[in-house]
Amino acid sequence: MDTKTVGKVPFEKGELVTNSNFTGTVWLNYLAETDSIHNVNIGSVTFAPGARTNWHYHKGGQILLVTAGRGLYQEKGKPIEVIETGEVVKCPPNIEHWHGATPKDTMTHIAIGTNTNIGGAVWLDPVTDEEYHKN
Amino acid sequence: MDTKTVGKVPFEKGELVTNSNFTGTVWLNYLAETDSIHNVNIGSVTFAPGARTNWHYHKGGQILLVTAGRGLYQEKGKPIEVIETGEVVKCPPNIEHWHGATPKDTMTHIAIGTNTNIGGAVWLDPVTDEEYHKN
Repeated sequence: MDTKTVGKVPFEKGELVTNSNFTGTVWLNYLAETDSIHNVNIGSVTFAPGARTNWHYHKGGQILLVTAGRGLYQEKGKPIEVIETGEVVKCPPNIEHWHGATPKDTMTHIAIGTNTNIGGAVWLDPVTDEEYHKN
Repeated sequence: MDTKTVGKVPFEKGELVTNSNFTGTVWLNYLAETDSIHNVNIGSVTFAPGARTNWHYHKGGQILLVTAGRGLYQEKGKPIEVIETGEVVKCPPNIEHWHGATPKDTMTHIAIGTNTNIGGAVWLDPVTDEEYHKN
């Protein structure tokens, strides 16, 4: 295995995300693909104001390191939480949730998918405007 | 489990490291302790010029994201490599290695210990000045 790979840490936006798992303008800078040795994947994700993931869950869990800006995080059935630069969020396996920017701020986090040998993200419905703006 | 914890990302130096697993001046900002769910631990480590880890290996492997400065990385029996801001290094399990700053630069990396359910770091001898300055 080639143990040294070149990524773009920190904070280059990377590529515009064009799939339907997100609402709004989102960039992904993929830092480390998973492998059968380390069992994690790592990406820096930047959300323009108003942008967010769909509802989703991770079979193996995820950890978010908020590296710039201010965003939102919500687990199904719980209140929306504000997440600021410097905060670390642990998303346990199989807990439905979403994350993204606030309506006014851009937010970047490093997302670490854990236990990828168990499985990755399972994508669900978009977060509606009504859900996103509920306080 | 409390899924939202406050860390200090990015780049606050954290606490001065006072144990004998390092040479020189090193700070550790512990971002996420391991748990039995995610099986990773995460810390931001800052090395003053000349500072470095001891030789060591990880039973479950490690991934480094160089977030500031310029450093050095060496696996036993291989040449010393320069690692720059933006580089990602995967250290496979049980491969003896060390990392640290260059003699002239400060270097910060986020260190992600992987598969912590298998085990953590095993610390060995200091990197001698002769080893550190060998090119």
